Amino acid sequence: MDSRINLNRLREDLEALSQFGRNAEGGVTRPSFSRADLEARRWLKGRIESAGLAYRQDGAGNIFGRMGGNGGKVVMAGSHIDTVVNGGRFDGSVGVLAALECLRTIKERGLAVSKPLEAAAFTDEEGNLIGDFLGSRAFSGRLNEDDLRRGDTQLGPPLKEILVGTDFTIESILRAREKAPALEAYLELHIEQGETLETEEVPIGVVEVIAGKHYRWCSFSGKTGHAGTVPLELRRDAFLGLADFALRATRLVATEYYGSMITIGRVCVLPGTFSNIPGRADFSLEFRNADKNDLRDLEKVLFPLAEEVAATRGLTFSSKIVDQTEPVVIPARIFGVIKAECEKLGYPYIALPSGPGHDAQILAFVTDVGMIFIPCLDGVSHSSQEMIRWDDLEKGANVLLQVLLRLAK
Amino acid sequence: MDSRINLNRLREDLEALSQFGRNAEGGVTRPSFSRADLEARRWLKGRIESAGLAYRQDGAGNIFGRMGGNGGKVVMAGSHIDTVVNGGRFDGSVGVLAALECLRTIKERGLAVSKPLEAAAFTDEEGNLIGDFLGSRAFSGRLNEDDLRRGDTQLGPPLKEILVGTDFTIESILRAREKAPALEAYLELHIEQGETLETEEVPIGVVEVIAGKHYRWCSFSGKTGHAGTVPLELRRDAFLGLADFALRATRLVATEYYGSMITIGRVCVLPGTFSNIPGRADFSLEFRNADKNDLRDLEKVLFPLAEEVAATRGLTFSSKIVDQTEPVVIPARIFGVIKAECEKLGYPYIALPSGPGHDAQILAFVTDVGMIFIPCLDGVSHSSQEMIRWDDLEKGANVLLQVLLRLAK
Repeated sequence: MDSRINLNRLREDLEALSQFGRNAEGGVTRPSFSRADLEARRWLKGRIESAGLAYRQDGAGNIFGRMGGNGGKVVMAGSHIDTVVNGGRFDGSVGVLAALECLRTIKERGLAVSKPLEAAAFTDEEGNLIGDFLGSRAFSGRLNEDDLRRGDTQLGPPLKEILVGTDFTIESILRAREKAPALEAYLELHIEQGETLETEEVPIGVVEVIAGKHYRWCSFSGKTGHAGTVPLELRRDAFLGLADFALRATRLVATEYYGSMITIGRVCVLPGTFSNIPGRADFSLEFRNADKNDLRDLEKVLFPLAEEVAATRGLTFSSKIVDQTEPVVIPARIFGVIKAECEKLGYPYIALPSGPGHDAQILAFVTDVGMIFIPCLDGVSHSSQEMIRWDDLEKGANVLLQVLLRLAK
Repeated sequence: MDSRINLNRLREDLEALSQFGRNAEGGVTRPSFSRADLEARRWLKGRIESAGLAYRQDGAGNIFGRMGGNGGKVVMAGSHIDTVVNGGRFDGSVGVLAALECLRTIKERGLAVSKPLEAAAFTDEEGNLIGDFLGSRAFSGRLNEDDLRRGDTQLGPPLKEILVGTDFTIESILRAREKAPALEAYLELHIEQGETLETEEVPIGVVEVIAGKHYRWCSFSGKTGHAGTVPLELRRDAFLGLADFALRATRLVATEYYGSMITIGRVCVLPGTFSNIPGRADFSLEFRNADKNDLRDLEKVLFPLAEEVAATRGLTFSSKIVDQTEPVVIPARIFGVIKAECEKLGYPYIALPSGPGHDAQILAFVTDVGMIFIPCLDGVSHSSQEMIRWDDLEKGANVLLQVLLRLAK
């Protein structure tokens, strides 16, 4: 007998979870360890326990619900429940709650599995604290201990302060790896956060590679001065350096590295008043590619370009790496199982790369990973406008269920 | 007998005033009506009274110290004691305290004047509250009543809140004009805030025109999206629109409007994260010119250019005027007196335009104005590094003294 997940139950869970940190516009602000997140965690614990699963939390705040098996490698499915500021209701939550729904279905139907199964919610995938993927990094032994101990967070307050009132400390995060179970595989259902599936009119995307990315925090420095006195030809305006670099770098990537992404998303100009020439322009630079060598090539051309712009304009350029991940190719064994189960279920699918990063790419350091995408409307994500079709979610969760059954057989 | 100001006394006053709002780096943060400013005001009142001058404060918080005359038009000299955040010790303060020193010298030496003289400190020249020149605008009847009543301030809290605990209300600011005396002339001694005097190696600049300026708060709007999924060729990246406009507008002004200034000093990119394509880029645009017609021409070319950039990139452009001042030509009668007194004193001087705006340009609506510049080292201003040579200050204050004596004769 084919088994199917219970969409109504999954949908109710999604709607309940989306209430924690919900704002008036319909967006969700739920960074890890915020009050909204701590409440959501208590709710999730209740859902795991009422499903008859064994609840567990590790030192990094990763939450697990376990069923079956007497030891042996775990087949895990999950994602994250934290959000960006004013994020959406589906990014991350879909993967956690679909995993929970799959285990619930297996349990209540008594479906045959021989390996233990776990549903997982990883802490701070969005990087509101110390870079992206704090929880999955801790689970996989891939933390940067220096960054963690320094504790500078995107949200402002130091990590130590944010951890007050939680069960966690910097030491407990660093030790989370010690008790992590060995994994047979890790699966993640996620919204696409792009428009490919919608354009192609298919409900399922089978990820073949997760793009690598390179995050830098960069700075052009020049000389400030009064906007009414320093003639244009004598200025060393750091913002004009950034403007020049932004245009030239984007043109270079668009023409010579087709398929790569480059984005300057965050900009801080100092001193930052109407009448001061910008003496400094700080900015984020990120670039992505699904191919490791292309990613290295981008690094080799972009920073010399920034240096060249600086030299031309009497500025200096500096940068530091904020985060860096290698592209992850999904192993053929997992990719094949997902495709096969889509076919058995009769769901149309396409193979596609994932531009965004996901916990799966960190779990790839310790196990074989796979990812299943469902469409999100207009490709909109990280926004209160994020939306899915429930029908697509049902299909995605059913694929996840069949893949888990097959891998845990 | 030639009379001279007392540099030691003036210097002591400057050093005393610079303690209010002084920070560890040596900069001064003293926006009008801040605690530091209220303390500085009490100190200034004490200095005015101990000089035997009649202290007066108007409804906008402008402070005056008066001597001599039984009615009749006032010869006024002054500037402001407020600063930008982490500003310098001399911008504004020099003009107020030199005026005070001149009146003190006239009084104690019993020098002959037939007209009343006033030393003035105008509120919020720096525009930390409602645009630049709040105090001199109130004094000259040039307030924008709507902006004032709306009360949105650069510092954050609404004006009404900032006024709590002061002697002033929005109504009292609006009524300040009613009790303003008629003026014979207004003189302002100020640091140059540029490098011309230093480069030319002269201690005195006689201002011949104060540039007009145009302040706008502008915005390019496009579409945000995930930096990992939207291909470069499909993006409507608002920041790239700003970068394009910044370079093209600067090049246009530098080549076709030589001598004009254009500055983008404040930038806010939204949503402002590493992984979000900028959906909006807000920025300040200011341009200046000493010629009224050139200023109008700039307006006629810059905004169509912004619209053109927006159209090319699938963006929209919008802007609103934040502030706008016309260029002020110094009347020949005042300009001539200042030059003549420099010559009599044997001080080298040059005539020059003022790029920055000053209270004098607002006072120009109600009287003849003149400005005397002294060098500031490396042209640095609005900075904790702002510095002058005491010898230059002495010369500048002596010119001011002689000009006041001549005009008040």
